Amino acid sequence: VTRKSVVFCVAEFRLAVVQLQVTRVKADNLSRARRLVKEAADEGSKVVLLPECFNSPYGTSFFPTYAERIPGESTQMLSEAAKESGVYLVGGSIPEEDGGKLYNSCVVFGPDGGMILKHRKIHLFDINIPGKICFQESETLSPGNSLSMFDTPYCKVGVGICYDMRFAELAQLYSRSGCQLLVYPGAFNMTTGPAHWELLQRARALDNQVFVATASPARDETASYVAWGHSTVVNPWGEVISKAGAEETIIYANIDLQHLADVRQQIPITSQRRSDLYSVASVQAGSG
Amino acid sequence: VTRKSVVFCVAEFRLAVVQLQVTRVKADNLSRARRLVKEAADEGSKVVLLPECFNSPYGTSFFPTYAERIPGESTQMLSEAAKESGVYLVGGSIPEEDGGKLYNSCVVFGPDGGMILKHRKIHLFDINIPGKICFQESETLSPGNSLSMFDTPYCKVGVGICYDMRFAELAQLYSRSGCQLLVYPGAFNMTTGPAHWELLQRARALDNQVFVATASPARDETASYVAWGHSTVVNPWGEVISKAGAEETIIYANIDLQHLADVRQQIPITSQRRSDLYSVASVQAGSG
Repeated sequence: VTRKSVVFCVAEFRLAVVQLQVTRVKADNLSRARRLVKEAADEGSKVVLLPECFNSPYGTSFFPTYAERIPGESTQMLSEAAKESGVYLVGGSIPEEDGGKLYNSCVVFGPDGGMILKHRKIHLFDINIPGKICFQESETLSPGNSLSMFDTPYCKVGVGICYDMRFAELAQLYSRSGCQLLVYPGAFNMTTGPAHWELLQRARALDNQVFVATASPARDETASYVAWGHSTVVNPWGEVISKAGAEETIIYANIDLQHLADVRQQIPITSQRRSDLYSVASVQAGSG
Repeated sequence: VTRKSVVFCVAEFRLAVVQLQVTRVKADNLSRARRLVKEAADEGSKVVLLPECFNSPYGTSFFPTYAERIPGESTQMLSEAAKESGVYLVGGSIPEEDGGKLYNSCVVFGPDGGMILKHRKIHLFDINIPGKICFQESETLSPGNSLSMFDTPYCKVGVGICYDMRFAELAQLYSRSGCQLLVYPGAFNMTTGPAHWELLQRARALDNQVFVATASPARDETASYVAWGHSTVVNPWGEVISKAGAEETIIYANIDLQHLADVRQQIPITSQRRSDLYSVASVQAGSG
């Protein structure tokens, strides 16, 4: 009798998105985030995603007050949470202070507690919809200048923050670089949320045949900026496979990489792109 | 008393989409198309859009039989229809024969009956979704090698055919080149239609802040390839502003270029793109 050795590929893993209720009390935000990351890990999640601005209310008046250097209090908690839970932890974002400037920054930690990358929001949220919402991040924040991808044993992951999602090029470059999952911590509002939040995610997922996950803070009607909530996971067919309401919750999704491979075989746009006619290219690998 | 001269810009025009019932009788397809173009013009339309493969049933077995040279019978009708109605006529598409090869080609005529451009489908529709649909255009067709835009007194228009819509780069290049309206004659099917037809249009419209119009043949349940129908017009906010059912009909939409300008001012992604980090570029202006 001969024995054959069989290699199993990990073709599926569990992703958790924590839709955290963010308050003005930073210590509470940090402790609740840590507890929910642990809960998500206990449910079998291998990658956990926190929302944009998870340690601070969202607003230009709050950013200077809540900003930290990196490493600092909030990222120290993230490192410990990742290690104690043994997960890849995409730490939403925090207001970061560096060299007298402020950034909206996402830090990712591995299961050993080590920092893997820092993504500074590339596209600042400067919109003005008369009678609905006016918000100018650029009044207080500076933009990052780099794309941000990281490897896991399951797949490669691309990171953007909120308004970054409106720029299709970022997702195109991530997917062309081999990312099969794109994550966007984000806090859309009560105007752009119902209009565009899900549409943008489904567009990124379908156009690039990747999984897309977003993490919003839970809705707080008393906040100066009211987040839409509705954290979502979309599959490469463009279908919503998991979606939160407005309240604090954890949503889960099985990231099935065989499904991704099937979709790419069924509708082979990945191999049919006309690189003889057009290209999407990274102009430089900047710093920031 | 002094008189001031006031310049009015044409900031709005009426677009019509003809969702034609296509049969196996070419002469009927041509005469009905001509009648409906006239009807659309009588209702004030300045630009009229016909569906993909409007003179022939859609299917690789039909393409060789129905194919014509250009100019030929079908494009002669289009020229006359554009002139008699005084409209810009985007002639859906027809199977074109040239030099022993077949193409899926869209021809556009101006109000004087002159041919403005010919777009040969760049991306051939080769999909295989087991148990649902398998279709391989490349068995009989050759692809075009050029992007296709044309000017009108109202705005610049970019042209793609059906499966071309799945490739975001085409729409990105058109909009960066100044197109404010993208038109896609198309014939999605009963699998990809409900899944992706509207999503792709809304994605192209929102990501590029342009109007998007699609023209499908009406549904014929007895055909070998059953078209989804649901010809649609989407505005730059990503909203469906006009939509057909499955039957033969004409739908209308007011293309309000002031709305487009407003959206671009409210959410200024057009000026916020990070050209220092990425670019979408045309690789060459090929022929074909």
